[in-house]
Amino acid sequence: MEENTRNIISNFIKFTDSEWLVISKDLIEKKIDKGEFLIKEGEYCNYIALIDEGLLSYYYLVEGKKHIRGFFFANDFISSYTSFLSDEKSKAYIQALENTSMMLIHKDKLFQLYQKNSKFLQLGRMLTEHLFMLLSVKYEALLLKSPEERYLSLIENRPNVIQNIPQYMIASYLGITPEALSRIRKRLTRK
Amino acid sequence: MEENTRNIISNFIKFTDSEWLVISKDLIEKKIDKGEFLIKEGEYCNYIALIDEGLLSYYYLVEGKKHIRGFFFANDFISSYTSFLSDEKSKAYIQALENTSMMLIHKDKLFQLYQKNSKFLQLGRMLTEHLFMLLSVKYEALLLKSPEERYLSLIENRPNVIQNIPQYMIASYLGITPEALSRIRKRLTRK
Repeated sequence: MEENTRNIISNFIKFTDSEWLVISKDLIEKKIDKGEFLIKEGEYCNYIALIDEGLLSYYYLVEGKKHIRGFFFANDFISSYTSFLSDEKSKAYIQALENTSMMLIHKDKLFQLYQKNSKFLQLGRMLTEHLFMLLSVKYEALLLKSPEERYLSLIENRPNVIQNIPQYMIASYLGITPEALSRIRKRLTRK
Repeated sequence: MEENTRNIISNFIKFTDSEWLVISKDLIEKKIDKGEFLIKEGEYCNYIALIDEGLLSYYYLVEGKKHIRGFFFANDFISSYTSFLSDEKSKAYIQALENTSMMLIHKDKLFQLYQKNSKFLQLGRMLTEHLFMLLSVKYEALLLKSPEERYLSLIENRPNVIQNIPQYMIASYLGITPEALSRIRKRLTRK
C-alpha cells in the first residue's frame, strides 16, 4: 500500500528515497468496512487520506435527507477538508460503500513536514490546489451541466466501479429522482 | 495601495522589508470602471488580484441568465482560480459593480517567487487554502443554509457595502426571486 501511495504522490512531486522515508514514517494505514464511517457530521477531521482500495461516499444530511456530493475511488485523496483547514466540526459525512483501505496523514504531522523541507511544502501547496480543483469542478458542474452530462462524466471516469453503486445513490449525487436517472440510462442505451 | 496589500498579506505571513521588496516588484496596479469586466467566460485568468477599493460580482451565465455566486469587496482576494490553476478558459465572469482598484500578480511571477524563498511558497499554500475555504463555505451554504440565513451572513459581513448592490443581484446570489427577497427583508425589519 505504501508503494502505491508513493506512486500517486509522485504525480505531484518526486521524492528521493531518503525524503520518502521521512514522509512514510508519518503515514498510517486505516481500513474501514462497508457501511462504516470515516467521519460523521460534528466530528473534527484532522487528516487527509489517500484511498488504496475501496469506495467512499461523501454526503450532507439536510432535514434527514442524504445529499451525496461525491464518490471517491482507489487513488483519490479524501478529507472533510473544510474541517481540516478551519479546525471546525465537519458538516459532511464520509461513509464506505465497500471495504476500504487507505493511507492517512494527520494534520500536525503534515504541518511539521512543511517545516522540514520546502519540497514537502510544495507538495502541500499542490495538494491544496488539487482539492480546490476537485471542489470547483463539482461546484461549476452543478450549475452548468445537465444531470445527463454529469452522469456521463461519472461513468467515463470510472466505468467499472460505478456499477457497484446503488442507483438511488447516483440519483442523489445527480440531484434527480431514481426514475429520472432510469430515463437517462434508457435514453443513453438507445444511442 | 501597496501598503494596504502588504497589511492584508501579513495576515497570512509577515515578510521583512527586503522580502517584501522582492514581492512588490511583481505587483501590478489595475483599475476598472463600474460595469467593466476583470474577466469574461472563455478568457484565460492568469492572475490573482487583491481588491483595494471597490466591489466586484462573480457570476456564471446559464442559458442567458446570470447566476451570481459571489460579491467581492475591498481587501478580498479574487481570481477565476479554476482557470488560473488549470490553464483552461474561465467559465465565470467577474464584473465591477463600482469603480474598482486592485493589485494583481501574474501566475508566472507568483510561481517564480515560490522558487526563490520557502516563505513565498508558504504564502502560496496559505492563499490556496484561503481560496478553498471561501469556495467551500459558499458550496456548503448553498445546500445547508436557507436564503434568509445566507442573506443574514451577507449583511453581517459587509453591512455598508451591501446597500450599494441592486436587490435583483442579491436575489440572484441567494437563488431566489426579488419578490422573495423583499419578503425576507420585511420579515427581518419586523424582528
